[in-house]
Amino acid sequence: MEIEEQAALTSGADFWHTRAVADVPAVMVTDGPHGVRKQVVGEGLGLLASEPSTCFPPAVAMGSTWDPELVRRVGAALGQECLAMDVAVLLGPGINLKRTPLGGRNFEYFSEDPILTGVLATEWVAGLQSKGVGASLKHFAMNSQETDRMRVSADVDERTLREMYLRAFQRVVQRARPWTVMCSYNRINGVYASQHRWLLTDVLRGEWGYEGVLVSDWGAVVDRVEAVRAGLDLTMPGPDDAGDRDLAAAVRAGSLPAAALQTAASRVESLVRRAVAAATPGATYDADAHHALAREAASRGIVLLKNDGGLLPLAAGEPSIAVIGEQARSPRYQGGGSSLINPTRLDNALDEITAHATGTVRFAAGYDDPEAAAALARESSVAIVFAGSEEETEGSDRTSLELPAAHRALIEKVAAANPRTVVVLSNGAVIRTGPWDAAVPALVEGWLLGQAGGGAIADVLFGVVNPSGRLTETIPVKLADHPSYLDFPGEQGHVRYGEGIHVGYRGFDAREQEVAYPFGFGLSYTTFEYSGLSVSTVDGGLEVRVSVANTGSRDGREVVQVYTSIGSSRVRRAPRELKAFASVPIAAGESAEVVLTVDAGDLAYWDVELGRWVVEAGDYTVAVGASSRDIRTTATVALAGDDERRALTVDSTIGEWFADPRGAQALAEAFTAMAAAGGGAMAQTVADPAMLSLMASMPLDRVVAFAGDAFTPEILADLLKAAN
Amino acid sequence: MEIEEQAALTSGADFWHTRAVADVPAVMVTDGPHGVRKQVVGEGLGLLASEPSTCFPPAVAMGSTWDPELVRRVGAALGQECLAMDVAVLLGPGINLKRTPLGGRNFEYFSEDPILTGVLATEWVAGLQSKGVGASLKHFAMNSQETDRMRVSADVDERTLREMYLRAFQRVVQRARPWTVMCSYNRINGVYASQHRWLLTDVLRGEWGYEGVLVSDWGAVVDRVEAVRAGLDLTMPGPDDAGDRDLAAAVRAGSLPAAALQTAASRVESLVRRAVAAATPGATYDADAHHALAREAASRGIVLLKNDGGLLPLAAGEPSIAVIGEQARSPRYQGGGSSLINPTRLDNALDEITAHATGTVRFAAGYDDPEAAAALARESSVAIVFAGSEEETEGSDRTSLELPAAHRALIEKVAAANPRTVVVLSNGAVIRTGPWDAAVPALVEGWLLGQAGGGAIADVLFGVVNPSGRLTETIPVKLADHPSYLDFPGEQGHVRYGEGIHVGYRGFDAREQEVAYPFGFGLSYTTFEYSGLSVSTVDGGLEVRVSVANTGSRDGREVVQVYTSIGSSRVRRAPRELKAFASVPIAAGESAEVVLTVDAGDLAYWDVELGRWVVEAGDYTVAVGASSRDIRTTATVALAGDDERRALTVDSTIGEWFADPRGAQALAEAFTAMAAAGGGAMAQTVADPAMLSLMASMPLDRVVAFAGDAFTPEILADLLKAAN
Repeated sequence: MEIEEQAALTSGADFWHTRAVADVPAVMVTDGPHGVRKQVVGEGLGLLASEPSTCFPPAVAMGSTWDPELVRRVGAALGQECLAMDVAVLLGPGINLKRTPLGGRNFEYFSEDPILTGVLATEWVAGLQSKGVGASLKHFAMNSQETDRMRVSADVDERTLREMYLRAFQRVVQRARPWTVMCSYNRINGVYASQHRWLLTDVLRGEWGYEGVLVSDWGAVVDRVEAVRAGLDLTMPGPDDAGDRDLAAAVRAGSLPAAALQTAASRVESLVRRAVAAATPGATYDADAHHALAREAASRGIVLLKNDGGLLPLAAGEPSIAVIGEQARSPRYQGGGSSLINPTRLDNALDEITAHATGTVRFAAGYDDPEAAAALARESSVAIVFAGSEEETEGSDRTSLELPAAHRALIEKVAAANPRTVVVLSNGAVIRTGPWDAAVPALVEGWLLGQAGGGAIADVLFGVVNPSGRLTETIPVKLADHPSYLDFPGEQGHVRYGEGIHVGYRGFDAREQEVAYPFGFGLSYTTFEYSGLSVSTVDGGLEVRVSVANTGSRDGREVVQVYTSIGSSRVRRAPRELKAFASVPIAAGESAEVVLTVDAGDLAYWDVELGRWVVEAGDYTVAVGASSRDIRTTATVALAGDDERRALTVDSTIGEWFADPRGAQALAEAFTAMAAAGGGAMAQTVADPAMLSLMASMPLDRVVAFAGDAFTPEILADLLKAAN
Repeated sequence: MEIEEQAALTSGADFWHTRAVADVPAVMVTDGPHGVRKQVVGEGLGLLASEPSTCFPPAVAMGSTWDPELVRRVGAALGQECLAMDVAVLLGPGINLKRTPLGGRNFEYFSEDPILTGVLATEWVAGLQSKGVGASLKHFAMNSQETDRMRVSADVDERTLREMYLRAFQRVVQRARPWTVMCSYNRINGVYASQHRWLLTDVLRGEWGYEGVLVSDWGAVVDRVEAVRAGLDLTMPGPDDAGDRDLAAAVRAGSLPAAALQTAASRVESLVRRAVAAATPGATYDADAHHALAREAASRGIVLLKNDGGLLPLAAGEPSIAVIGEQARSPRYQGGGSSLINPTRLDNALDEITAHATGTVRFAAGYDDPEAAAALARESSVAIVFAGSEEETEGSDRTSLELPAAHRALIEKVAAANPRTVVVLSNGAVIRTGPWDAAVPALVEGWLLGQAGGGAIADVLFGVVNPSGRLTETIPVKLADHPSYLDFPGEQGHVRYGEGIHVGYRGFDAREQEVAYPFGFGLSYTTFEYSGLSVSTVDGGLEVRVSVANTGSRDGREVVQVYTSIGSSRVRRAPRELKAFASVPIAAGESAEVVLTVDAGDLAYWDVELGRWVVEAGDYTVAVGASSRDIRTTATVALAGDDERRALTVDSTIGEWFADPRGAQALAEAFTAMAAAGGGAMAQTVADPAMLSLMASMPLDRVVAFAGDAFTPEILADLLKAAN
C-alpha cells in the first residue's frame, strides 16, 4: 500500500465511515452507548435525526443494577441492533469515573468506583462483541468533566491515574479486548490524550497488550503526525485531506517512522476486515423483546432510597393516586448530546401507573402550579411526585446539585398536603436530596431509565419488581462536602485532581464525613441477613463465601458487596475499597451461599517507586455488606503479598538503612571502620549511634558530605555492595 | 581572587562560621529564631550546649500577638543579643506556612496565612537588622513538614506556590531585605530547593530583586556545582573541601560559568564585610529588660479560647487555688531541635500564680495521679489544669492532634470535681480541644511561651493583662476535617499539595465546615463594638476605616481584621482572605478610629496564563471583624483592576472568540466569507450560528480541522490579525 493510501486509511471518509482505500472497504461506526444512533443524513456535526433504535437505560441506571449478566444481555442486544443496521462499531461503553456529581456526562458512565465500572463494562463489551460488532472503549482517559473538555489538562499523579482512572480501562482491555479504544479530548498532565505516547503506546499497548484500533474522539486530534507518532490509528471524523498529506509528507521526510503509519493503517485495515467478515446482511432484531429487556434493565436500575413506614409498594387497589409532575407524562429518560437515541417507542409512568392501578389515577403537571397539585394530593390516598434535574448533557457540566426550585417547591407543597407522598427522581447524576426530603416518607431514585422507564417505575412502585438497584455514587449532604469540590472544574486550562485516590466514597470515608446516602446503598421490600463468612486465599487473591438469607416475605435480590482494607500500608489507602460484588436473587425465606472472588491484582496498589503493582503483605480486613456503610460481617486474612524490597542507595535515609537487616550491619561496620581510621571530629560524631538515630531522616549521601573526606569512596562502594 | 579561593568562600569553615579566605575574615552565624543559640563547643552536629540567651516566645506565640510593633521590638532585642555575642547572622525567621497542624516545626512558624506571616516577619527582620545583624529568611521554600524533609518533593501548582507558599517570602524580601535567605532541604516539584534555579534565581533575584546571600540549610546541598549554577551562594556547614574542589574543577572545565562562582563568592564577601562593619565589640544587653520583654510578648500571645460565665480573670483574693499538672512547675516553653535555647532564666506558672494570689495555692503534679488532683480540686475554690502536647520538635511531625491521654483524663477528672476549672494549654501547634472541653468553662491557649511564659500566664489568669492573642491557625473539630488531611505527610517521596490555595481557614471556609475555633479568634475580658466602616480606593488598593469601641469595663486590645472577597472571579478564590489587621489598645469606654490599608498587590491572584499577578476588576466585599468567622461589618467597593485581556489564538474556544467584541466580529466575518466561497457541507454547517453555539467549548483550530480545506490559511491569518 502506498504511503498516501496508508495515510488515507487513518482518517475517516466522513462523520460516520472509515475510508475505502484500495481493496479495503468502508465500514460504519455510530454513536452509542445505550442505543444505536445511526444518523439519517450523513453530513453535519453529527447531532441530526437518527433512525429509531431501542433506547436502553443509560449507564447511570445500568450501573445501578450491579448485575454483570444483565449488562451483558443488554450489550448483546445492542450488538444485534448494530448488525441489523449495518453498523460495524458502536461507540461505547463510556467508562470514565464519576469524579464529580456535576459531570455533565455522568449519565453515560457507570460509577465512582473503578472495579464496579470495570466489571460491568467488561460484560457490556463482551455482550456487544459476541454479535460480531466492535466496541469503542471511551474516553481514554481522564475525561471526567465536560467543562473545557477539548483543552483542559487533567493534572494527576501516577498512582491516582493508575489505581482510579485507568484501572477500569485496564480491566476491560485485558478481559474483553474491545475492537477499538477511543482517546479523549482533554490533556493529561499537559499532553493531549491524542498525542500521549506514554498512555497510548507504553501503557495501553506495551503493558496491557492491546492490539485493536485506537480511534480519536471526534475532533480530538490536534496534530495528525504527533497523534500517529504517539500510537493513534484512526482520526475521526473526516475527511482530513490536509492531515493525510501532512502524514505522508512526514513519512517521506523521515520525520515520522514509516512503520508508525504502516502499523496504524494495518490496524484500521484489520478492523475493517473483521467487521466485514462479521456483517450479517438481512439481520433483524425483535423490537418488542428489546423493549422488554429495556424495561427489565430499567426496573433493576431503580434505587429505593427511603421507604419509611413501608409506604411502598403500593397495593394495586390503592384507592386514589395523584400522579404529579410533568415528567410523569413527558419522561426524562436519557441525556443530551451524542448519545441521544430516537427510541422505537416511549413509555411514560403516568400511563403505566394507570395500567397497574385498580383505583383512580389523576394527574397534575405540577411544576408551574404546586397549589393545584397539592389540592389533588390532598384528595388522594397517595401522591407520587415526579421531579428531576433537567439538563444533563454532553458538552457542559451541571453547576448545582439541587433539584430545580419549582420541583422542590412542588414536593414540599404536596408532602404537606398528603403525608403519604412518594417522590420519584429522574436525574443523570446524583442530586441533593435534602432538606426537602424531610417530610417525604418514600424516595425512589429513577435516574434516566431509557424508553421503557415508565413501566419500570410502575413495576417498582407496585412491587411487581422488588427493587435491587444500588448507588454507584455517593449522595453527599451538600456539594461542598464532595472530595472533588475544591478542584472542579479547574481553571486556566488545568484541573488538578487534588483529592488523588480519594474519589467518591473513598474520600467521604477517609474524612469521616456524613453522607446523605452512601455508595452501594439501596433498599428492598424484603430484608436480608448475612452469616457464615469465610475467606480463603486462592492464587494470591481471595475467595469469599457468605450465606445470605431473605428474612422477609417477598422474593428479592441482594447486592452483596465485598470491601477490603489493610491494617498498615506503605501508602495512603482508602478505608474501604470495593473488590467484588454479586447480585443474588433469593426467594422469601430462602438462603443463598454466595461465592465471590477477588483477584490478587485487584488488591494491589500502584507503587510509584517500583513502577509496578504491589500486593502488600499484611492482614487484610474483608468486610461484606449491603453498602459501603452497612457492613454486616467481617473477617481478617493474612496475605504474603509481593516482594517489595527496595535497593538501598546513597539517597536512602539512615533510618531506611537501619531498618534493613543487611543495611544496618553494613552501615555499622562502615562507621566503625571510619572511626578506626581516625577521620575528623565530624566523622567521629557521625559514628556515634545516638547521633545517628537523630539523623534518621538524613539520606546517606548527606551524611557522607557531613563526614567529609573521612568517608572515602571505597568505604561507600563497599557499603552499597554489602547492603544489596 | 583565585578560583579556588572563590570556591572556598562558598562553603563554611565549620558548623557556625564562614571561611576566612585571603583578606575576607570569617563571621559567625547561629541558630535562632526566638533566641541566640550560640554553641559552646564548635564542632559536632550542632545540637550541643549553648551559651545562655533570652528565650523569647517562639513564633507560634509571637504570631498570635498579631502585633507588628511588638514583633519588631523582639527582633531588635535579638539583634542586640547577637551583637553582644559577636554573631553576624541569626538564622531566622522561619516563615513557612502551617499547612498542617501536625507539622513538627509549626512552633517556629507564624501562621497558616501568608499575609499575616509576611507582615510579622517583615517587622522581625527589620528589628533584628536595625542592630546591624543579618536575618536568614527560611526555609525557602515549601518546607511545611518534617517527615522525609531532606528528600520529599512538595508537588504544587504554580498559583498555589505563588499565592500561598511564596507570598510571605516575597513580602519580606522586598520590604525588609534580609541579609540572607536560607534554602530548604526538600524538593519542589521534583527539584531540590538548593538546586532550583527557577526558584532561587528567576523568582527570588529576577522578579523580587533580591541581592543578599542565599545560604543552604545545614546539609541541604546535594551537588555543589548544581547548587551554585542554580544561584546558591553559601553551602553550610563546612568544611567541604571535596565540594570546593568540584566547583573549581567545574569552572576550569568550563562546565560551570566562571561568573556564577564569582558572583556567589562576592555575595558572601559582601555579607562578611557588612557584618564586620556592623560588629560592636563590647556590646551588651540588659537581660532583665529582655526578660521583661519576653514576658510582655508572651502575655500578648496567649489566646483565651473559652470563658463561660466570666470565670476569668481570677480575683487576687481567690480563696483557694489548685494548680494541677507538672507543666505548671516544669513548663514546656519551647520546642526541640535547632531552635532550642538555653534561657537566661526560667519562670514557671506555679510560682507566678502563687506570687499573684493572696489566697492559698496548692499543687498536684496530676498526670500520673488524676485522683489526687481531683481531690485537691474538690477542696479548692478554683482549679487550674496545665496540659499540653509533649513532643513538638524539628525533625519529626506529630502523628496526632490529641492531648496525651493522661492529660485528657486529668482534665476530665478535675472538671468533674470542680466546675470552676480552667485549662491552660501548652503546645507548639493546635491540638484538638474536644470532647474533653465540654465540662471546662475556661480554656487558655498558652502555646510555647518562652522563658517568661509562667509570669505571662499568671498575668492573664489574674487580669493583669487583658488577653488579646488571636489564633493564627484554625482549630479543627477533628484532624480528618483539615484541608491537608488526605495529603500529609505524602508517600514515596512526594507530598501533593492537593488542597491547593485552600490552606487552613481558606479550606474550611470553602467547604463550609464547622471548626472548633476559627482563624483569628480570641476572647477578651472586655467587649468591642464596630461601627462606621468606610472603604476607599487608594493607589489601586484600599483604605479601610472603622471605629471600634471598648464597651466593657476593662481596658483591652482588639485585633481588627480585614478580609476581602470578590463577587465573581476567573479563578477559584477562597471565601475570605485576610488582607490587613491591627492590634489596637482601647481603654474601657473609649473608641478608636482604626485605619488599615490594603496594597493593590495584596488583592491580586497569580494568573498562570498571563504569568503575572492580576487584580481583577469587580466588586470586592470588605469584611471587618474580630475573627474570620466573626465579621462585624462589611462594605462593597468596586475596583477597576488590571488589564487582563488575553490574545485570541487558534487554541481559543469559539466561546472565547464570541465573548470578545473584536473576536466575535472577526469570526462572524470569516464564516460569512467561507460560506460565500462555497466550501463543503462541513463549512456550511460550521457557518451556522446555532451549530457554533453548540461548539462553544471547541478551540478554533479544531473547528478549522472540521471545516477542512474551506478554512484557508489566509482566512485564518486575517481572523487572528483582526481579533488582536
